[in-house]
Amino acid sequence: MPPPYPPPERDVVVSFRDRGFKYGDAVFDTSRTFHGKLFKLEAHVDRLFRSLRYLRIELGLSRGEVVEITDDVLGRNRHLLGPEEDYWVSQRVSRGADALDGAPATGPTVIVECTPLPLKARARLFRDGITLVIPSVRRTPPDSLSPNAKTDNYLNMIMGDLEVTSHDPAAWALLLDSRGFLSEGMGSNLFVVRDGALFTPKRQQVLPGVSRGVVIELAQKLGIAVAEDDLNPYDAYTADEAFVTSTSLCICPARSLNGAKFGDGTIPGPVTQRLTEAYRELVQCDFVAQHLRHLQ
Amino acid sequence: MPPPYPPPERDVVVSFRDRGFKYGDAVFDTSRTFHGKLFKLEAHVDRLFRSLRYLRIELGLSRGEVVEITDDVLGRNRHLLGPEEDYWVSQRVSRGADALDGAPATGPTVIVECTPLPLKARARLFRDGITLVIPSVRRTPPDSLSPNAKTDNYLNMIMGDLEVTSHDPAAWALLLDSRGFLSEGMGSNLFVVRDGALFTPKRQQVLPGVSRGVVIELAQKLGIAVAEDDLNPYDAYTADEAFVTSTSLCICPARSLNGAKFGDGTIPGPVTQRLTEAYRELVQCDFVAQHLRHLQ
Amino acid sequence: MPPPYPPPERDVVVSFRDRGFKYGDAVFDTSRTFHGKLFKLEAHVDRLFRSLRYLRIELGLSRGEVVEITDDVLGRNRHLLGPEEDYWVSQRVSRGADALDGAPATGPTVIVECTPLPLKARARLFRDGITLVIPSVRRTPPDSLSPNAKTDNYLNMIMGDLEVTSHDPAAWALLLDSRGFLSEGMGSNLFVVRDGALFTPKRQQVLPGVSRGVVIELAQKLGIAVAEDDLNPYDAYTADEAFVTSTSLCICPARSLNGAKFGDGTIPGPVTQRLTEAYRELVQCDFVAQHLRHLQ
Amino acid sequence: MPPPYPPPERDVVVSFRDRGFKYGDAVFDTSRTFHGKLFKLEAHVDRLFRSLRYLRIELGLSRGEVVEITDDVLGRNRHLLGPEEDYWVSQRVSRGADALDGAPATGPTVIVECTPLPLKARARLFRDGITLVIPSVRRTPPDSLSPNAKTDNYLNMIMGDLEVTSHDPAAWALLLDSRGFLSEGMGSNLFVVRDGALFTPKRQQVLPGVSRGVVIELAQKLGIAVAEDDLNPYDAYTADEAFVTSTSLCICPARSLNGAKFGDGTIPGPVTQRLTEAYRELVQCDFVAQHLRHLQ
Amino acid sequence: MPPPYPPPERDVVVSFRDRGFKYGDAVFDTSRTFHGKLFKLEAHVDRLFRSLRYLRIELGLSRGEVVEITDDVLGRNRHLLGPEEDYWVSQRVSRGADALDGAPATGPTVIVECTPLPLKARARLFRDGITLVIPSVRRTPPDSLSPNAKTDNYLNMIMGDLEVTSHDPAAWALLLDSRGFLSEGMGSNLFVVRDGALFTPKRQQVLPGVSRGVVIELAQKLGIAVAEDDLNPYDAYTADEAFVTSTSLCICPARSLNGAKFGDGTIPGPVTQRLTEAYRELVQCDFVAQHLRHLQ
Amino acid sequence: MPPPYPPPERDVVVSFRDRGFKYGDAVFDTSRTFHGKLFKLEAHVDRLFRSLRYLRIELGLSRGEVVEITDDVLGRNRHLLGPEEDYWVSQRVSRGADALDGAPATGPTVIVECTPLPLKARARLFRDGITLVIPSVRRTPPDSLSPNAKTDNYLNMIMGDLEVTSHDPAAWALLLDSRGFLSEGMGSNLFVVRDGALFTPKRQQVLPGVSRGVVIELAQKLGIAVAEDDLNPYDAYTADEAFVTSTSLCICPARSLNGAKFGDGTIPGPVTQRLTEAYRELVQCDFVAQHLRHLQ
Repeated sequence: MPPPYPPPERDVVVSFRDRGFKYGDAVFDTSRTFHGKLFKLEAHVDRLFRSLRYLRIELGLSRGEVVEITDDVLGRNRHLLGPEEDYWVSQRVSRGADALDGAPATGPTVIVECTPLPLKARARLFRDGITLVIPSVRRTPPDSLSPNAKTDNYLNMIMGDLEVTSHDPAAWALLLDSRGFLSEGMGSNLFVVRDGALFTPKRQQVLPGVSRGVVIELAQKLGIAVAEDDLNPYDAYTADEAFVTSTSLCICPARSLNGAKFGDGTIPGPVTQRLTEAYRELVQCDFVAQHLRHLQ
Repeated sequence: MPPPYPPPERDVVVSFRDRGFKYGDAVFDTSRTFHGKLFKLEAHVDRLFRSLRYLRIELGLSRGEVVEITDDVLGRNRHLLGPEEDYWVSQRVSRGADALDGAPATGPTVIVECTPLPLKARARLFRDGITLVIPSVRRTPPDSLSPNAKTDNYLNMIMGDLEVTSHDPAAWALLLDSRGFLSEGMGSNLFVVRDGALFTPKRQQVLPGVSRGVVIELAQKLGIAVAEDDLNPYDAYTADEAFVTSTSLCICPARSLNGAKFGDGTIPGPVTQRLTEAYRELVQCDFVAQHLRHLQ
Repeated sequence: MPPPYPPPERDVVVSFRDRGFKYGDAVFDTSRTFHGKLFKLEAHVDRLFRSLRYLRIELGLSRGEVVEITDDVLGRNRHLLGPEEDYWVSQRVSRGADALDGAPATGPTVIVECTPLPLKARARLFRDGITLVIPSVRRTPPDSLSPNAKTDNYLNMIMGDLEVTSHDPAAWALLLDSRGFLSEGMGSNLFVVRDGALFTPKRQQVLPGVSRGVVIELAQKLGIAVAEDDLNPYDAYTADEAFVTSTSLCICPARSLNGAKFGDGTIPGPVTQRLTEAYRELVQCDFVAQHLRHLQ
Repeated sequence: MPPPYPPPERDVVVSFRDRGFKYGDAVFDTSRTFHGKLFKLEAHVDRLFRSLRYLRIELGLSRGEVVEITDDVLGRNRHLLGPEEDYWVSQRVSRGADALDGAPATGPTVIVECTPLPLKARARLFRDGITLVIPSVRRTPPDSLSPNAKTDNYLNMIMGDLEVTSHDPAAWALLLDSRGFLSEGMGSNLFVVRDGALFTPKRQQVLPGVSRGVVIELAQKLGIAVAEDDLNPYDAYTADEAFVTSTSLCICPARSLNGAKFGDGTIPGPVTQRLTEAYRELVQCDFVAQHLRHLQ
Repeated sequence: MPPPYPPPERDVVVSFRDRGFKYGDAVFDTSRTFHGKLFKLEAHVDRLFRSLRYLRIELGLSRGEVVEITDDVLGRNRHLLGPEEDYWVSQRVSRGADALDGAPATGPTVIVECTPLPLKARARLFRDGITLVIPSVRRTPPDSLSPNAKTDNYLNMIMGDLEVTSHDPAAWALLLDSRGFLSEGMGSNLFVVRDGALFTPKRQQVLPGVSRGVVIELAQKLGIAVAEDDLNPYDAYTADEAFVTSTSLCICPARSLNGAKFGDGTIPGPVTQRLTEAYRELVQCDFVAQHLRHLQ
Repeated sequence: MPPPYPPPERDVVVSFRDRGFKYGDAVFDTSRTFHGKLFKLEAHVDRLFRSLRYLRIELGLSRGEVVEITDDVLGRNRHLLGPEEDYWVSQRVSRGADALDGAPATGPTVIVECTPLPLKARARLFRDGITLVIPSVRRTPPDSLSPNAKTDNYLNMIMGDLEVTSHDPAAWALLLDSRGFLSEGMGSNLFVVRDGALFTPKRQQVLPGVSRGVVIELAQKLGIAVAEDDLNPYDAYTADEAFVTSTSLCICPARSLNGAKFGDGTIPGPVTQRLTEAYRELVQCDFVAQHLRHLQ
């Protein structure tokens, strides 16, 4: 009898010899669903393929096949979602295991999986805004490992998070790049608002988030000026508002940086609010309400 | 019926949710055996504990327990070794899997395993010397992620190897640190010899290899001057000899840097040879012959 | 009737046009008393003169005259000290006010003053150890402004303190230098202990504290190895003990770095304790007890 | 009898314990008058408030109150201006004095003051052009202390000035930023002209001068292309013209850089001249003539 | 009898005391002919004069005179060209020889010369694409020596070429700038194509090639978006196409970077092809065919 | 009739196609005579061979042959020396000319030549001390081109000299390295004296001068502490004395740095004087008197 497809989650395991486990020699990408439907899957798969190309991992599947498999995995798991719930859906590709004497190299390991969004754990962020703290750890410079590729080497980010959560378990690390400008957090991009215009760190030093791209496009449609630029901490300390974009949160207000509130402390600020509304309309899902209902 | 202990290798697997697999959020250390006996295990376990401390992973085992488990795993696998063979013996510790809604965090994943040394694949290195090439990728700077900790984030090194093996599959990458000085390769430390004295990159920018420490001690005993210092590529281009240290190779001559031979091209050079002999005596194993016999 | 000499503290004021006030264009140095007697005054005055030289401020007084004035000011204020109290005694020299049309430049402003040591506020540090946190702000690089001179430009340090005290009002900032190595805090030098040896950041990136020099000398006398070296955060995270030196505290144990305890958390650690005892003997004053009695 | 308000200048003093005097822990901003009337006061006060925010000094006054006080101080001093004279009008805010045992912290020190413009001393600059020299001192990098905030820590700039005036007392220092690009001088921004277009260093590395902003706007109105960009020294050496903007000088031609004349040496160059005329018209004051008349 | 003018090539020699020979203290610029006629000579002479200005070499000739001499030298050598051949035509200006005791400084050495284009040696590049490899050597930073000036100090570039040709004699070095972004090769600029748009490194870090400028203009005319920007190696690894511009090659496709092919490996890619056609039309010469005919 | 050997100086010329002239693609080394006899020739030739190795130029002569040729050239020119005069004797090796179509590459160009020391021009330096000025140009970093090799690429140094001589034609440039520490001047190494001990920049960032090595050895013999270390400008500003070493000057006092005198301005300082005397004894020549007599 063949094993069930897809296998139950407990059977999705990798050898300890897998280079993904030994070296983080792997890439991944993650989309989310709105009302159970994937958003911008093609953009995420394109980025996955750029990450694979950067690491020279030969996947052996076309973009189309990856989309198809992803849709299939989602389809088989959708019935597990409760009402108002949604999924992160991820493709994970490692280079596989090296050859041992007498055993060939395995070729890439490929996993496609669904994880329910942590709506409850993050609900508070939409009410209070995210507490951002800059750790002393600097984002790995692009000539060591490109931040543009979404790889499994996250210790740089994790070291930043360990620093800031040791003081405040709810804080999010916002790293400076190796040149001292604001860059990004783990899975999140920063925007600051000043005099009605948006500023976000340049693509060279961050993972160019799909949600970041969505916000840039929405801003242009709304007539809000938006610039990708090098940002000093000063630019954030003196901003009127700030927010973070990520696949799951879409757009979420930030409350403070290093203990200093943004602007007058309104959560969300007016520009953040306009962009949130436009984002909700685009994805046809009130992701803010989806989180906030868990606070009651 | 309880599962066998230790389990067969094919059953040593980790969940795809393990942070070791998702983020390389893990550390490891590797000793080797000589004639089936572990060398400097305590030094390796000490370094493992420093790596754990750096990443703030709570292992829940004492140094002594890790030594004991390692000895036990080696003992149960020693019968699998052929004559003249030896093992790498590794401890691998990841932070485990994160909590999901309804499922707690798992605590650390711990694996202790044996892998036969690739004596055949590397035999050529002792005959010909290692072909070193400096890639354009720079070693991750210590303020992004410390090279002193032996973590599972190896993509920086792997990117360097991909560069240099694209030209010559047998080449080894020797990275410059972020300041432009010579640092290290994947699992290997560099020594250059000039006017009879040894020079090796400073501990701040490299993994301070146990074999590197052994060579420094041996040199001091032999009356060979040895300095840890910042080394320019010029220092390597104009060196009389060069060699590499690593756990498995102990000390292995290098042939060339970026296509330029070291010194007059003798493999090994005289200082390398003296140190090799002293190393052999210390470990009571002719690791050079152990490799070279595979060439016949 | 001439004004009293020295004037009462409320009359020691400077014009708002003084360059010390407008630009921080000034230097200072601070000694402390033990049982009302100044310690290492000459070393402090020498450093003051080096700071003056660096800024090209012509003081118009010899080293000897500065020592004499300092002794005089202390003598006239000593009667104000309570039992078990001691003073900080500082010389402050600004470049004075610029020339205005019709008014010449003023020449340097010189102030010598006494301030009671904040024994009560800092008593807790000796019991609990100092909580060190690395802010994201980097120490000003020496090619912008030398950390070797004790000037009135402290905003770099203050920005670091604002960051870390926003999370924990009792935390002390320990800055990284511009290259990412550990440097110093406001008025304090760092030492870490590993395997019984002392390590402290190199003099190029810090103010070479007089107390730091005392500890280096005491260690040498006690046969404790001591090295000035570039220190990675890793070196502190994996240290067995750490302590801070400063003029007032002399030597004070550190408890944690970025929320991670040093060693096994003993306050003070054994090497710190040995050095503390030697320091007490040298200055003939139990500065630890002097602080701790304020806890009762 | 209450003291006079405002007090005579000699009574405007600060305690030696004021953090503005001890640490340069203060900010300021300076506007100038044209024919006795303040220009762009709101823009200067906005910048002052951003500087305060960056340093987390709570002023306890609104922007409007600061404008009002400034107007009042100017009004009470305007009668002291001679014909054709004008004022610098500055707000200076320090964090005040720290708490001592038995004495609370003082809260911020606030001073608003008028200083006659040094028209005579600077008249020569409009006739001959400013002699710019790049010192070896580099502008403090933004991750140490932001150049965007106008603080009282000017020693970095002053060290640059000391270097260049040691060779030529009339020279102005133009610092490179920490990356080696042209940045700014003490209180002045640089513009270079090439092929009819303006280039000025990017806002991230300089104080974004109000006069700099005026020139950018005027250029846009006149159809002169203007770019904020990283500028190499090469860009200045090969420029056709160069000029400096500052609050008091508005726009003033530069003569040479490191001893090499700009363009063909015409003072002012044609683009500088067009912008000067537009500036004069905007402020309704011939600031060039105001200076030049002092040469006779 | 006066020596012939111009002299035969073997008589065009410089003293070993010439600073061009001793120090590379010289500049040059090179145009090429199409069908024997010079292209963009004025732009090249303008750049030559900027290089002279940067090095403060007084040529003693006007731009017009240099153009005239160049035309004259070309005219006297044109008859030596075979059919379908073309020339590089270069002006070379050194600072001349220093004064010795008893002998004055010589003033600048000026040479104008023609060299046949190496059509045969480079024909393969148009068929196969250029093999680009990033060496470990970094482009000299602009604050050490400006890459914007075309000087005779090429060792930085040559060191890069020595590295990459040691592995593959046909490879071209593409250097990273000191910040880790892509810069340029010896005499060549890089363009990458992504999603139909062109990207090329910023002018601050490269010699702003005349052919680079031509391609930017052609792209704008063809409606192809083009951006000067900082480019990570990632940007090249994930590009759809890449090409190089240089005076002689005009525009030539690149095949691979560090052994990884650009896009799907088509030589030339479609955007490269469109620009090549536009370039051919502009110069009225099929420079691709001119090279390719040498392959038969 | 064969041409005379060695040829008269006017016949020692190189083709304009020589890579030494076109690119500075060449190395050299220079010894000096004392009373007509070469000093430390072997050390200079060793350094020449290291420079050749770094640039991968195959000279085709052994060290011994180069020594022999050098001695021969000196021997044939010695009769031209006046009394009390001495020579610089240099070997210059370029890579030769590239292959052209129809003409092969030429192989290296080798020149050995004598130049009378500029005793008159430099006499003043021994009386007054050298005026050192730090230009804004930074020494080329070792990962761009090694300062350890003595190559013909001197524009970085020359740009520094152009800066400082534009203010004072007699000033010598002392460059900072790319990290902001003191490095070297054109053909000269720096030593500073503080509290009786010598400090000189580390070998990684400078040409390790033979005279520098001599001074280090002499100091050790005299019991003067000497350290190779990173030096801040502060270290020079606050030094008691400073001097420069070079092949021709041997050891020459420095007067000032950036206009600030060293120590109390005594020329030479006492430590400089002791070392000068030891140097004179070693070389059996009073090089100071040799210079000073030209002042009369």
